[in-house]
Amino acid sequence: METFDYPKSRDLFTRAAKVVPCGIYGHFSPAPLVPPESYPFYTARAAGSRFWDVDGNEFIDYMCAYGPMITGYNREEVDQAAMDQLKRGNCTTGAPEVMVDLAEYLVDLIPSADWAFFAKNGGDLTDYATMIARDATGRKKIVMIGGGYHGVASWMQAPGHHGLIEEDYAHIIRIPWNDADAFEQVIGRYPDQIAGFIATPYHVPAFADNELPAEGYWQRIETLCRKNGIVLIVDDIRHGFRFDMGGSCEYFGFKPDLICFCKALANGYPISALVGNQSLKDVVARVFYTGSYWFSAVPMAAALANLKLMKEIDAPRKILETGNRLLDGMVDIAKGYGYDLKVTGAPSMPYLRITNDPSLMLHQDWCAECTKRGVYFTSHHNWFISTAHTDRDIEQTLAIVDEAFKVVKAQYGDSF
Amino acid sequence: METFDYPKSRDLFTRAAKVVPCGIYGHFSPAPLVPPESYPFYTARAAGSRFWDVDGNEFIDYMCAYGPMITGYNREEVDQAAMDQLKRGNCTTGAPEVMVDLAEYLVDLIPSADWAFFAKNGGDLTDYATMIARDATGRKKIVMIGGGYHGVASWMQAPGHHGLIEEDYAHIIRIPWNDADAFEQVIGRYPDQIAGFIATPYHVPAFADNELPAEGYWQRIETLCRKNGIVLIVDDIRHGFRFDMGGSCEYFGFKPDLICFCKALANGYPISALVGNQSLKDVVARVFYTGSYWFSAVPMAAALANLKLMKEIDAPRKILETGNRLLDGMVDIAKGYGYDLKVTGAPSMPYLRITNDPSLMLHQDWCAECTKRGVYFTSHHNWFISTAHTDRDIEQTLAIVDEAFKVVKAQYGDSF
Repeated sequence: METFDYPKSRDLFTRAAKVVPCGIYGHFSPAPLVPPESYPFYTARAAGSRFWDVDGNEFIDYMCAYGPMITGYNREEVDQAAMDQLKRGNCTTGAPEVMVDLAEYLVDLIPSADWAFFAKNGGDLTDYATMIARDATGRKKIVMIGGGYHGVASWMQAPGHHGLIEEDYAHIIRIPWNDADAFEQVIGRYPDQIAGFIATPYHVPAFADNELPAEGYWQRIETLCRKNGIVLIVDDIRHGFRFDMGGSCEYFGFKPDLICFCKALANGYPISALVGNQSLKDVVARVFYTGSYWFSAVPMAAALANLKLMKEIDAPRKILETGNRLLDGMVDIAKGYGYDLKVTGAPSMPYLRITNDPSLMLHQDWCAECTKRGVYFTSHHNWFISTAHTDRDIEQTLAIVDEAFKVVKAQYGDSF
Repeated sequence: METFDYPKSRDLFTRAAKVVPCGIYGHFSPAPLVPPESYPFYTARAAGSRFWDVDGNEFIDYMCAYGPMITGYNREEVDQAAMDQLKRGNCTTGAPEVMVDLAEYLVDLIPSADWAFFAKNGGDLTDYATMIARDATGRKKIVMIGGGYHGVASWMQAPGHHGLIEEDYAHIIRIPWNDADAFEQVIGRYPDQIAGFIATPYHVPAFADNELPAEGYWQRIETLCRKNGIVLIVDDIRHGFRFDMGGSCEYFGFKPDLICFCKALANGYPISALVGNQSLKDVVARVFYTGSYWFSAVPMAAALANLKLMKEIDAPRKILETGNRLLDGMVDIAKGYGYDLKVTGAPSMPYLRITNDPSLMLHQDWCAECTKRGVYFTSHHNWFISTAHTDRDIEQTLAIVDEAFKVVKAQYGDSF
């Protein structure tokens, strides 16, 4: 099997490094892609489940733009709705009609939603949700999960990160995931001081196994929030529309006060949505929040088309089935080579790790060997399955997975 | 002259109010549009300098989406570049090649820029700029201008706004505009504690006259920043590319460390850009900041095309000339009716007020009478002139301005 080389990616990165800090910053930074020489850095085009890098190499994509792609790159139904809207107008003076249509659709679709509010980033909304919680309760403290990621505002980043001052997180309390007792203790320690609790539907730390909610966890969190007047915020930015079209809380069986959606909402068009219950509508009305492009019509038209499409094809079920087929095959192949490939999180956005490789070196090399052969895997972050991944994609993926295990087995032998 | 009615806008707003807090929130909220019955709330389509509301009424647009539209709605050169990129891919795994092209172009275009960093909102970057300043200096305090607007993060909003806690702005110091003495005093009061100074190139408060920098103001601010190791941040989100293609600091003659661009950058496509000098490049590299759609190729392709277009047609000069022609005509017409129409700010983004109307009631009514006849004016916010505003637009505008003055004169007489 041929392996890829990336001379044009390297040349571009050399140019980029002169005019962009890090060359590429943020979550697209090549830094966590190891070994970096095995990865392409720049994408030239994309279609369906695949992208082509600037060197012309073709990849079956299991990162899906780190989440936004859910129904396939350049999905016709979504792009057509976006283009039709673009011809009429995008970012104009006055809100677009489609904003009302989209809000009505979300309120119909999502049992916990009595209203909707649109922004651009997921982090816009996790930040706004905490402001809403504080205004609604007259309290300061926000409880979140240690290792949880809600964006890049200074209060969200873990202490120790660059650019923060201690006042940013003076009222942020981190507790372990799946530990409702810890939440109860914090409530006891700070009576009538906790404005909100924020967490993802299940825990998706980078560089570590993902963790589903323990039996009864969310129900206890919900009860504690209700009993103590704490605003329950779900960060459904990464998970949203992958488990249930009504929000991941429906899948896990609880009722939040606020849900933040983003990534999969519009299949990559830039929009995020906060939805919430009636009791907070007046609070949202008085907490000022806005942005230059937040009323743009094109991403709203795309979101509406993509939501209808996801609902019609039952996207959550489809990606779960595809994920299961892929992962069952991969775990079997790994076993044949003596490797225990551990899958955590949901099969539609799995995190993988080879357990008999405590250093992760072999796992990283294996991901890289897959990538060099046309299956884009990262070693440190959960993957994403889209509805565009076909049976043929899975077959090709499993063949490459097998070959990559053969290569690392030859390289590492049994001595890892 | 016929006046407009807005039954479909009202019906849509009634629907919206059920599913969206405020019906329309943020800076597009109808709340400051008085009297509200004179204004359309929803836009159906737009082209060039004009938009059509959902009732089919046609407006010459002097708000330009509150700034993003600079080269005309649906400007062919920009939309074509965006569409060409969309066909290849938008939000994909891996950064796009055009990101490097855009960064190189900005670094060439802007004398103060040694690098560029892209995000989605203006507020993303004013927030990030303060994190960079804090990390670069190891200091906490940020000095800004009272009444200045830099976005909606909790530290940016004035104390008293909903959703804030005092820790958010514990290290934010507000000083009056055009008062370098006040800055010097603050530096004396907090020696080695000030991380950054942030301001717009000139002061654009809402509901109040805009104020250009006093002679020597920026030069003194720059000197004080240099002398005291303070990071000088220009919020060029609203002003950028309207005064000088190299940034408004070139027009006003000073050198900032960081410049935040947004609105006019891509003629409405959602992108913002932070540029800065070499000394901060490594700091930016280590302060983590990212977002779901920040590497999308389409807005980058649009920005590149729009920047080239603005440069080619000398957009800053063109909008200044158009603004002067419009405002000279309006001031003359006002005078004929006995009104002193005061223009503040630059002619390309003017703020208007009738000075012999201290209550602003007559001014509001006059703006509304213009709007009802097809010239969209707001009474509380600076306007924007685009390169798409034609001589015919100005002629039609002046005819409507005249008619509207006639109407308010008949209504108010000389007793205002």
